[in-house]
Amino acid sequence: MRLSKAFVPTTKEAPKDAVLPSHIYLVRGGFINQVASGIYNFLPFGKRVLDKIRSIIKEELDKAGCQEVQLGFVTPCELWEESGRFAKYGKELLRFKDRKENCFVLGPTHEEMMVALVRGRVTSYKQLPLNLYQINLKFRDEARPRFGLLRGREFIMKDGYSFHESIEDMQREYALMEETYKKIFTRLGLTFRAVEADVGAIGGSASKEFMVIANSGEDTIAVCSACEYAANVEAAKRKKPVPPVEAPEFSNFEPFYTPGLTSIEELSDFFKVHPYYFVKAVAKKAIYDESEEIVIFFLRGSDELQEIKAANAIGANELVDVSEEELQEAGIVPGFIAPYEQQCRIVLDEDLKGAKGLICGGNRKDYHLIGADLSHFDEALFADIVQVKEGDLCPECGAVMKLTKGIEVGHIFQLGTRYSAAMNATFLDRDGKAKPFVMGTYGIGVSRLVAAAIEQNHDERGCIWPKEIAPYEVCIIVSNIKDSEQSELGEELYQKLLDKGVEVVLDDRADRFGAKIKDFELIGYPYALIVGKALKEGKVQLVDRKTLQKLDVPKEEAIEELMRYLH
Amino acid sequence: MRLSKAFVPTTKEAPKDAVLPSHIYLVRGGFINQVASGIYNFLPFGKRVLDKIRSIIKEELDKAGCQEVQLGFVTPCELWEESGRFAKYGKELLRFKDRKENCFVLGPTHEEMMVALVRGRVTSYKQLPLNLYQINLKFRDEARPRFGLLRGREFIMKDGYSFHESIEDMQREYALMEETYKKIFTRLGLTFRAVEADVGAIGGSASKEFMVIANSGEDTIAVCSACEYAANVEAAKRKKPVPPVEAPEFSNFEPFYTPGLTSIEELSDFFKVHPYYFVKAVAKKAIYDESEEIVIFFLRGSDELQEIKAANAIGANELVDVSEEELQEAGIVPGFIAPYEQQCRIVLDEDLKGAKGLICGGNRKDYHLIGADLSHFDEALFADIVQVKEGDLCPECGAVMKLTKGIEVGHIFQLGTRYSAAMNATFLDRDGKAKPFVMGTYGIGVSRLVAAAIEQNHDERGCIWPKEIAPYEVCIIVSNIKDSEQSELGEELYQKLLDKGVEVVLDDRADRFGAKIKDFELIGYPYALIVGKALKEGKVQLVDRKTLQKLDVPKEEAIEELMRYLH
Repeated sequence: MRLSKAFVPTTKEAPKDAVLPSHIYLVRGGFINQVASGIYNFLPFGKRVLDKIRSIIKEELDKAGCQEVQLGFVTPCELWEESGRFAKYGKELLRFKDRKENCFVLGPTHEEMMVALVRGRVTSYKQLPLNLYQINLKFRDEARPRFGLLRGREFIMKDGYSFHESIEDMQREYALMEETYKKIFTRLGLTFRAVEADVGAIGGSASKEFMVIANSGEDTIAVCSACEYAANVEAAKRKKPVPPVEAPEFSNFEPFYTPGLTSIEELSDFFKVHPYYFVKAVAKKAIYDESEEIVIFFLRGSDELQEIKAANAIGANELVDVSEEELQEAGIVPGFIAPYEQQCRIVLDEDLKGAKGLICGGNRKDYHLIGADLSHFDEALFADIVQVKEGDLCPECGAVMKLTKGIEVGHIFQLGTRYSAAMNATFLDRDGKAKPFVMGTYGIGVSRLVAAAIEQNHDERGCIWPKEIAPYEVCIIVSNIKDSEQSELGEELYQKLLDKGVEVVLDDRADRFGAKIKDFELIGYPYALIVGKALKEGKVQLVDRKTLQKLDVPKEEAIEELMRYLH
Repeated sequence: MRLSKAFVPTTKEAPKDAVLPSHIYLVRGGFINQVASGIYNFLPFGKRVLDKIRSIIKEELDKAGCQEVQLGFVTPCELWEESGRFAKYGKELLRFKDRKENCFVLGPTHEEMMVALVRGRVTSYKQLPLNLYQINLKFRDEARPRFGLLRGREFIMKDGYSFHESIEDMQREYALMEETYKKIFTRLGLTFRAVEADVGAIGGSASKEFMVIANSGEDTIAVCSACEYAANVEAAKRKKPVPPVEAPEFSNFEPFYTPGLTSIEELSDFFKVHPYYFVKAVAKKAIYDESEEIVIFFLRGSDELQEIKAANAIGANELVDVSEEELQEAGIVPGFIAPYEQQCRIVLDEDLKGAKGLICGGNRKDYHLIGADLSHFDEALFADIVQVKEGDLCPECGAVMKLTKGIEVGHIFQLGTRYSAAMNATFLDRDGKAKPFVMGTYGIGVSRLVAAAIEQNHDERGCIWPKEIAPYEVCIIVSNIKDSEQSELGEELYQKLLDKGVEVVLDDRADRFGAKIKDFELIGYPYALIVGKALKEGKVQLVDRKTLQKLDVPKEEAIEELMRYLH
């Protein structure tokens, strides 16, 4: 491709609302442009990146035995009513009526559509297993679309759904998909981790997320420094911590006057006792499908509540804040809440199981209890609700864990029979009995990957594409196209690289050299060949976009040298 | 692909509303299934056909210098208001509001989006020409979706748009696109014609449609039996016909009592005069953007009115029927309308220019005028409004024309400045003046092609795919998979063909042989290799789906023989 003919409208201005590098550089580099909030056009270079990602995904899925389909994007509301999601799904589900007043939804995900497709067409265990996927448009009417392609409304997703006769077979496919996803993200040239994920609201028994490691990631991941263990903090576990100091000794179990002291920090100072030996209370309102209640969560003073884990522990859809007034109305004393004698539901963190010699709230204003003993509390009251923190120990091997940031680009899920049972999608098993399909579901954020790649690979000048998904591998920059010697060598190198099957662009525009270099750095081709002043000495320069190092190469050796870098 | 693992749910039942072969066989063959009226899923085999079509289109367009983009499918209403189409476009334009009450449209075509993309990003003639295309979803809320993929609501289209500094350059690109389209449809293995098309309502100066020839086509095409000329009857011209018989002689111009006789047939019988010498009147109501009027069209009695040509002749959006009462109110005498003394607008067919010695209506009930003379009528009243019929003469070479049926699968269009001017999309020309882009637009119905291919290539047993776009080229049918000799040879042939890069499926299902043959014929792979009873004599059968001829081949020569057919 000659840049003089290419539609790659680079610009100096970043979008006003852009804060993340991928948003800024993808727009400035002429890869995408915003049409409306959360809706983007892919320009020729953006489309090329997208297609490369798409074809790597397709190749690996096809190799793994998956079959590609393309489902309707506009989906009838009846299917959403069958599954029960029409009412539950919030405003993200964009609903509208056609000219005949029939109700439709712009597909935000396709579980219903896929179950409806397979229902009645796969009728026997002999036709199982089956893994169908598509790489297609999705629409979610996000409340706050932002970060460019990272949180858009219209986006491209690979969504796959597998159908099985048993949980075991579904788990076999789930493991195969985990392997396949690892191959895919490796081939994309990205640094990533497969992490344990929250299974929460969707239900199902296990789930892993694939995270592209990047400082700007919205997700926090706990990663073991020794073994393979990694998990989203929303789901991360830890080994039971070792007490940081020796336990204090309390001779009695009695109230102690602590006027105005409510924070763990103040109390620790006041009692000269490590926060580990305090019982921290966090009151929340739990929201269920059709009801709500106040729940108090208790943890060690040195720990924080993980709200997703806490909500899952009680089967709530979400936890929201509760006001002091509401607590008082419920007979709870804010700031001085004891795990004893509560009328409302309480949950204690597992790490408090059997703990004694603690300090906790006194259920009375300005009083705490010393010498609290939780060893007689019912087992059923305990659950893992703690937020794993830097330095906590790996639940698998006991080594120290670190926290890092990631962008979720894939999610695999042991779904079970949730949709097939609700939608009455059954097959005849080996005994001739009708059973709902056991399902798995597997997603990849395809357009999101375009942005994630840049979040992970950029500098202050622009994009640094992994060569596997770069719009082109090499840019030949002719410094001054009016210089016939430069211009002819540029053409010659361009033709030679094309002949070798290299994806190359020739910057043959009548622009200043400085502008061309800026575009090279902004667009982020992995390599450039500069045909410029050094040609007087018979040399061209090979530039590595990542390091920005320049290498003078005799013009006759330029191609050979470049090919060494490319392969 | 092994059919035992493939999701190809063939069925005996056709959809209730299906009348066309492509609709019936694509559903029965497990290529597509309907989700809702006019909305279809593509199943694995349908998706493969779609992808093959897509990649042939992409290859040829890229070779011709076009650049692929992917525009937002959900488009903001403001753009449609800018172009003026928001009000004009009828109910086909599906409009809805998002959660913030912003108005959007599901893109039925993307002129506005493409102009908005290029506007402000291409600012100089130096950046022209530019040809951008996408292969993407479209939605048109058709009043009567029908015929399966031929007239759906959600469909896949390739839409391209070119931008130029001059009409001449746009015409050069238009010619290039015509050549490119011919290459595309040739590579798809289809019999087609490029025909002159109506430019009507969209405006612009020239337009060609690409028609896949098929008996079930909705369009009628006039095709010259000698030269290249071909045109949609909505736009077809003809050479001035030779009078079929000698002209009658009328000594006077006078009224003649013709009680109750209004049809040309009755009048021709009554007067013993050839219909050619009658003046036929067709009264219509012409609908314009903001007004309407009665218009009377006059033609020879041997001709029919072509309504699209007639509407274009007067710049109307469409012509609708007008009642006898309305005519009477306007002082017109239905059945006896003369081209003389009308208060309303009249248009005469060009073939009546200078004609004398005619019979026409008398503007009085039960009277006709004989010896009518049109030679003094103003030139401006004449226009080409006639429907070309079988046997008419080619306007280019004078040879006889035939009528045939076609399915429109492509359309190229010299668009001009209609959208760029309305949307203020300008560039600086060589003199530094701001000018609106001169545009061309080029469409291909991608999902429609899947159906058109079958309309053209089928028999009473099912699909007969052109090998260029067949889901697979060959099906190896193992007659009885429990016969280990058959089953082993099937596997061996399958592996050998895979190794040769042949797209092959192995029918290794535990079904009856008859069912497998029926599926082969229904799905329509170009060839089958049957490994069955003949294996006892060391032979397999090679079946050509098109002719259904079977050839016994020694098993050792099967691959070689098949390769001869494939290439």
